[in-house]
Amino acid sequence: MAHDIVSEISPKPGDRIEDLSTPRPIIDEDRMAGNIARVQSYMDAHGLNFRPHIKTHKIPALAGAQVAAGAKGINCQKITEAEVFADAGFEDILITYNIIGPEKLARLSTLNERIGGLKVVADSNYTVDGLSAWFATRKPLTVLVECDTGGGRCGVQTPEAAAALARHIAGKPGLIFGGLMNYPKPNSAAATQAFLAETISLLKRDGIECAIVSNGGSPSLFDAHLVPAATEHRAGTYIYNDRSMVRAGHCREEDCAMHILATVVSRPTPDRAVIDAGSKALTSDLLGFSDHGVVVGYPEAVITGLSEEHGVIDLSKCTGPRPEIGDKVRIIPNHTCVVSNLFDTMVFHRDGVITRVEDVAARGLVW
Amino acid sequence: MAHDIVSEISPKPGDRIEDLSTPRPIIDEDRMAGNIARVQSYMDAHGLNFRPHIKTHKIPALAGAQVAAGAKGINCQKITEAEVFADAGFEDILITYNIIGPEKLARLSTLNERIGGLKVVADSNYTVDGLSAWFATRKPLTVLVECDTGGGRCGVQTPEAAAALARHIAGKPGLIFGGLMNYPKPNSAAATQAFLAETISLLKRDGIECAIVSNGGSPSLFDAHLVPAATEHRAGTYIYNDRSMVRAGHCREEDCAMHILATVVSRPTPDRAVIDAGSKALTSDLLGFSDHGVVVGYPEAVITGLSEEHGVIDLSKCTGPRPEIGDKVRIIPNHTCVVSNLFDTMVFHRDGVITRVEDVAARGLVW
Repeated sequence: MAHDIVSEISPKPGDRIEDLSTPRPIIDEDRMAGNIARVQSYMDAHGLNFRPHIKTHKIPALAGAQVAAGAKGINCQKITEAEVFADAGFEDILITYNIIGPEKLARLSTLNERIGGLKVVADSNYTVDGLSAWFATRKPLTVLVECDTGGGRCGVQTPEAAAALARHIAGKPGLIFGGLMNYPKPNSAAATQAFLAETISLLKRDGIECAIVSNGGSPSLFDAHLVPAATEHRAGTYIYNDRSMVRAGHCREEDCAMHILATVVSRPTPDRAVIDAGSKALTSDLLGFSDHGVVVGYPEAVITGLSEEHGVIDLSKCTGPRPEIGDKVRIIPNHTCVVSNLFDTMVFHRDGVITRVEDVAARGLVW
Repeated sequence: MAHDIVSEISPKPGDRIEDLSTPRPIIDEDRMAGNIARVQSYMDAHGLNFRPHIKTHKIPALAGAQVAAGAKGINCQKITEAEVFADAGFEDILITYNIIGPEKLARLSTLNERIGGLKVVADSNYTVDGLSAWFATRKPLTVLVECDTGGGRCGVQTPEAAAALARHIAGKPGLIFGGLMNYPKPNSAAATQAFLAETISLLKRDGIECAIVSNGGSPSLFDAHLVPAATEHRAGTYIYNDRSMVRAGHCREEDCAMHILATVVSRPTPDRAVIDAGSKALTSDLLGFSDHGVVVGYPEAVITGLSEEHGVIDLSKCTGPRPEIGDKVRIIPNHTCVVSNLFDTMVFHRDGVITRVEDVAARGLVW
């Protein structure tokens, strides 16, 4: 029922952005195309394969544009995301996750039978042994070793441990050792290179090749060429860009393709505006910021607080005009990927005219 | 397509919680029923009408249970939420929002024609004049004045301004003045009472009655009786409860009906566990906490960081057993309402056996 209502109020191509009811995220087609081209050019210039992470948009048509620009394969974080993209024709899919549990293993093998290029990662004997027990009697699965080169999330802790796990995978029925994967700490290319190169060297002594060495992350996007041990880089955020990417120096504010269109619904005091975008439109992701996004055109306005359907803006520092009740404003979110995850459809526009409305096809998938 | 996949993997009544793939929010039926009964008893004991906010669950069947327990009407934050609940048979609906813009006004009047008890709020002449321009030629709409008694969000700033806006509503074609509404600062019942009582008194001199005086908020839930000027109280979170409600002293940890079931997918170091619940399952809402939820059964474990599909847990303070890879854990979220908004379905259980799976019918509605 909910989704019927949404479709009734979905805008249509040709409609104008300023007529949209709010809150609503919108994507600037030209900025997005520029982002795809710029990052692909960087990867091409350095001879790196590029594997975009689809978690940012969850829309097959956008992954299609990324691949058309030159990307080699895609990166998913969940089996169900990979299923949506396999349905859309993608074959070279790396799921950068430890897959555990009988229900997930069963679906993973079904997916592996359907497409040629499925790969997952593992960082423990537990995960590897679970995969092997399932895949031993089925089409073999390619598994990469996840390495913690400093990112502090998942991953084996040393090159020696990585090599040991790689040997474990290589010796297990049903599994093919596929290489290495890591999600590094920002600004630590040298440590990443050292870890990966040492692991490759250890494995080479045993005659084990790392077909893929997948380095990653948006924070490390333009450091990819400083890790020559890697054969590819993964990143997602760059397609839309956001405030965190501007801060990192990876793009300009005018490269941010996603805005959350919002309406000023209250001006209770001269210094306070309230918009209809709260944590259920912008999310509460701070990513190190102390406030909740950039109000385009009002550089001194500060989104100081979010409740679920309200955003409170402090205008006290504004030296120029202040937004009035009924005005529509555009917010650049701190983090674009989590905003995509809140909305069932995404509206695209060029110069303010809607070009298309895409289902966020892989949104809402539980696991 | 996404939703077809979800339905394929939806669990069924009779399945056991421990067999669910993760991450997945689950609701304990008995705890939820206890929460509904306890808060309704408090309201009944003080002769207060209670109007639950459905934003917490977005599920008509749950609002039905709240009304069956004695609640008088429901509270929505969006027109589209109200439409879903009107479809389910609810008539007494207060939308606590300034409704602005032609598309929303058109839908609001359609809804007003369908049900008898629709009410909205306004805190400015701008909103009121927009409503009047639309409703002057249609079935009249009931409008309450939103007052800022200290909460610092929307609302007129003084009793005099509230009275003036009430008179403005009362004099406008197409509108019926319905009373007052506020969302107070926590622990400020005296200030709330003073603001509301003064406004009521000012209006009484003009012969204007406040049929509804709607006080609200989960933080102020058990202070409702300290605001005798109010005729009703609104709150949402109590039905599931969460870590913020435990901290506020409004419930015990064993009253938290929502858990996020998660699996330990990695134990990269002795002091670090990584679970498959990240910001796309728990949200980044901190609500004043410095970490991301309670790990039930591991009181010294701290969820220090979330990425989208990973939660990083610091186990260094754990004196007892530590969760191992493959273990399932239950997380009490900081804020339950925003978790509901991420999932298309919600699983309910009693003593670990699934009782039902409800569509989160009002999730994903843009405005």
